[in-house]
Amino acid sequence: MERLVGVDIGGTRTRVAAVQRGQILARRAFPTGGMAELQKAVEEVVREAGWSKPEAIGVGAPAPMDMRQGVILHAPNLPHWNGVNVVKELGALFGCLVFLGNDATCAAIGELVYGWKSKDFLYVTWSTGIGGGIVAGGEVVWGTTGQAGEIGHIPLRPDGPRCRCGKRGCLEAFAGGLGLSDRAWEGLGERLSALELVKRAQQGDPGPARLVDEACQAMGQALAIVAELLEPELIVFGGGLTHSWGFLEPKVETALREMSRVKPRLELTRLGDDVGLLGAAALPFHFPKF
Amino acid sequence: MERLVGVDIGGTRTRVAAVQRGQILARRAFPTGGMAELQKAVEEVVREAGWSKPEAIGVGAPAPMDMRQGVILHAPNLPHWNGVNVVKELGALFGCLVFLGNDATCAAIGELVYGWKSKDFLYVTWSTGIGGGIVAGGEVVWGTTGQAGEIGHIPLRPDGPRCRCGKRGCLEAFAGGLGLSDRAWEGLGERLSALELVKRAQQGDPGPARLVDEACQAMGQALAIVAELLEPELIVFGGGLTHSWGFLEPKVETALREMSRVKPRLELTRLGDDVGLLGAAALPFHFPKF
Repeated sequence: MERLVGVDIGGTRTRVAAVQRGQILARRAFPTGGMAELQKAVEEVVREAGWSKPEAIGVGAPAPMDMRQGVILHAPNLPHWNGVNVVKELGALFGCLVFLGNDATCAAIGELVYGWKSKDFLYVTWSTGIGGGIVAGGEVVWGTTGQAGEIGHIPLRPDGPRCRCGKRGCLEAFAGGLGLSDRAWEGLGERLSALELVKRAQQGDPGPARLVDEACQAMGQALAIVAELLEPELIVFGGGLTHSWGFLEPKVETALREMSRVKPRLELTRLGDDVGLLGAAALPFHFPKF
Repeated sequence: MERLVGVDIGGTRTRVAAVQRGQILARRAFPTGGMAELQKAVEEVVREAGWSKPEAIGVGAPAPMDMRQGVILHAPNLPHWNGVNVVKELGALFGCLVFLGNDATCAAIGELVYGWKSKDFLYVTWSTGIGGGIVAGGEVVWGTTGQAGEIGHIPLRPDGPRCRCGKRGCLEAFAGGLGLSDRAWEGLGERLSALELVKRAQQGDPGPARLVDEACQAMGQALAIVAELLEPELIVFGGGLTHSWGFLEPKVETALREMSRVKPRLELTRLGDDVGLLGAAALPFHFPKF
């Protein structure tokens, strides 16, 4: 299989690419819509790549899903995709194999196949939410039904602030973009985006600085937990909040080193915004045997 | 390879068995000594099994180690084994392949091959200390150098009590046997073993009951973290503290279910005290490719 299409469905934008031997031959990006918009984009990249049809399509999405059936389940942030059987519908449209997986795990696959190529690493998407994908011994860790890697929802403080997932004190409640905004509203009485908050912290504003320090402390603790559990060589970061990596990384690294005897390297993804897209295209080769 | 010897070196006792197709043909158990005592026991079980020599020996030990070289590193609780190249020395004595691995990971291998046979589970040794071994997608998770699985040393409270590993607020500091004794001394002013403490908690003594509740809460939090990260089907327990499983399990389970969206089953090992021994015998088939 060489003529692959990768699809990265995001909360705001969807990316589609025709990928051959790790090269993106054609790409589209557009505001996330439904199946009609996706079909059009896939047709376009396939045509532009000079193929009659793709051999396989891999789709990554930020939503709970039934990977066996290929169905996106309740996805409040992806209203057009609620309950859609992506595998069946895209398969019927393009007459090829289709695979559906979690977007952060797809990003980990991208990093495994085309990026850092480590055999033991954690991939972290640090953005509005916090997602994760795990590779151990060169194999993707999927879990029993493909839901593994949820570092954003590990409980750090059982008595901590309410997370959007319904539980308390998850990493995401402290360090995710929306969580940081919630903490700013509660603690500072201001409506701030995570990026504004980080900018104010960098300028030395003490309230925002304290919240950003707490977020980095929580991230470092989460990474220390993963380091003790999985002894990874590497932790790879992507996502919007890494635009402030130079400011955040030293704080995260200090916390990690204090709390773990295992010292993985922290790196940014080598694939930039394409990490999830390239990983989705490689999903057919790393799909679990349930 | 069929004629296997398993060795389980413990802090107090060492077990040795000749194992063929999962059956223990002969066994020895004796106070942990050094290489001379081990050599004698291996010779005895090999003779009793009717073999001229074993085809492979697998050794599990509760110590930091260099798995590539087969050397047990600093092991304060195993003074005879400090710096011993187990693989080289046993290999020279018996003229066969020898493999050295972490004891809790060996127990996970035992459970994978001969016990519950789940493809996605965590094995937890709940005893004086707390050890762990992870199986994901049917493969043992070793980490970069074989040190993965250290659930006892995941940092739950960065400002918590000092752990014997030097860090603060590890699971083991709250819920390990020695940790519980330390908490009893600090909090109740009494020198109590973990088993005495649990017994007093069962009798309704409020001080011990509070400490045992805290331990179970910490264990539940640790399992919830693993559940979100790895989506295991099962969490399997062994070790001395599981003798009070009927009292402890409901507390751990309640905490786990509150803090995780993934709900793995909690089970006791199906192999009793032999889990590590059988797993060590199967170590040759699951040794990592570093």
